[in-house]
Amino acid sequence: MSAFVFVLPTWPVDVWTQAMKAAAPDLDVRVWPNHLGRVEDIKYAAAWLPPADVLKGFPNLKLICSLGAGVDAILGDPTLPRDIPIVRVNDPDLTTRMSEYIVLHVLMHHRQQRRLGANQKLGVWDSFPTHAASALTVGIMGMGVMGADAATKLAMLGFKVVGWSRSRKTIPGIRCFAENELDAFLSQTDILVSLLPATKETDGIINRALIQKLSRKGPFAAPIMINAGRGRQQVEEDIITCLDNGELYAATLDVFSQEPLPRSSPLWSHPKVTLTPHAAADSDPETICRYVHQQIQNFEIGQPLQNLVDRKRGY
Amino acid sequence: MSAFVFVLPTWPVDVWTQAMKAAAPDLDVRVWPNHLGRVEDIKYAAAWLPPADVLKGFPNLKLICSLGAGVDAILGDPTLPRDIPIVRVNDPDLTTRMSEYIVLHVLMHHRQQRRLGANQKLGVWDSFPTHAASALTVGIMGMGVMGADAATKLAMLGFKVVGWSRSRKTIPGIRCFAENELDAFLSQTDILVSLLPATKETDGIINRALIQKLSRKGPFAAPIMINAGRGRQQVEEDIITCLDNGELYAATLDVFSQEPLPRSSPLWSHPKVTLTPHAAADSDPETICRYVHQQIQNFEIGQPLQNLVDRKRGY
Repeated sequence: MSAFVFVLPTWPVDVWTQAMKAAAPDLDVRVWPNHLGRVEDIKYAAAWLPPADVLKGFPNLKLICSLGAGVDAILGDPTLPRDIPIVRVNDPDLTTRMSEYIVLHVLMHHRQQRRLGANQKLGVWDSFPTHAASALTVGIMGMGVMGADAATKLAMLGFKVVGWSRSRKTIPGIRCFAENELDAFLSQTDILVSLLPATKETDGIINRALIQKLSRKGPFAAPIMINAGRGRQQVEEDIITCLDNGELYAATLDVFSQEPLPRSSPLWSHPKVTLTPHAAADSDPETICRYVHQQIQNFEIGQPLQNLVDRKRGY
Repeated sequence: MSAFVFVLPTWPVDVWTQAMKAAAPDLDVRVWPNHLGRVEDIKYAAAWLPPADVLKGFPNLKLICSLGAGVDAILGDPTLPRDIPIVRVNDPDLTTRMSEYIVLHVLMHHRQQRRLGANQKLGVWDSFPTHAASALTVGIMGMGVMGADAATKLAMLGFKVVGWSRSRKTIPGIRCFAENELDAFLSQTDILVSLLPATKETDGIINRALIQKLSRKGPFAAPIMINAGRGRQQVEEDIITCLDNGELYAATLDVFSQEPLPRSSPLWSHPKVTLTPHAAADSDPETICRYVHQQIQNFEIGQPLQNLVDRKRGY
């Protein structure tokens, strides 16, 4: 029986162990750091935010599965064993959930749900006029599987949608921009959505200079941003500055430069910030464990792996 | 020049007058009650919640336009002139906005946005597990143009969707129930959405007996309801009873038996109620005035009217 290990320092590992035992009765499921057993037995690992140096501790490791779409923590480990394939969870369930999150938060801004919620608290019946979805352009940075799915769903709800990615995509009804056309993309964007992978190129990309290039022609006084990509991409001081000086109308953040977000961060109580705990696309353990088991089976019978990470590209 | 009159006791009539003058330069736009001029000139009226006896005061009226999809206030006027055609605004913009509202509030429940909002207020980083959209069945009562559009969009987001209407509809991917199959429809429904017109048959339909027939097999402890149809359809004391005794998990209400909702209503501050001020599908005045003008032009050249109300059926 091959041994499999979870490296999940920030997640409730019991739930995952139970789900993996159900999905993979053919595997000996172990848990880092307290239930490792003989490390030489471990052939497969599934990780989320693994600390550096942990994965190198399994000398016979054959395959690493990232339990989220982002693999920056794994690739950022300087002692990560070379030549071991890394696959990332990118199943349809995860994509569906990410699109739910994007659609929900775009609609919350568009329909001014926080204003309505505050009115309810105050007992104020105020039916203010609103604009049509078609008056707003949502610009999505990162047009992989998730970005394309969210774009299509937003377009179907009536929003204008534009997309930006390293190489230009072709998606019906969506105007897609390529890497060197970032400024043109930003100038059309009333609501910016980031679904970018975390790479050296995207570190700190959401800064004040970028925010200043966003459209100011939309129905709100200033642009809105939603980050469900990675916290490393946002300069949090710049976002707060822009919210305070009116260069940004509001922000929804699911990711942060440090997670969990420290209690001392001013983002928690900023009146223009909606904040969620890196929960945009948490899939359920059962679905992900079935996916991971499928990848392991593919590996064992020599079938191609899905969503294999390109280490050079960084995702 | 034909004269046109607005009867809008609860709306900001100046905004509407300005929009109608822009959309219809060929009409003499008047306003009830203070800028009526010679009532004999008035051929066209556009109304929202007109008081009884007002419309009969225009002896040469040829056409009445309801500025919302609901015509119950107009038809409820015992002195409403007979044989004058009534059209209701039901343009694509209004349908798009209603679907936005339904999608937004289904997603807010599904993704537990109010719990996340409360956690943000408390500074709590709590990434609790959630379920997939496909684990929830949304049941829509009222499958007209709006219901069908909302159903299709929810299905596209991954929800299971069932529909109920007087006559069974055929919509790809949606299981549709007919009038005599209400109990079967309810037993499958985890989130109930009402978009029913207000008729004698639907008065008080959302009561405790109906709520008790909803599904209890969904991922939440009890069913959820959203009413964006008409307040007359809901028995508010029953909804509060069911929320308090756990027969209902949560409710989103856009409509109320009395509007504006009295300040004394316990709904305002009920922790399980999300409340909006009959704003689910307020279209913008410009769009609606263009639509009304188009109907008047159709009438003048003898073209068929769109969304003509069937007075017997009540919508």
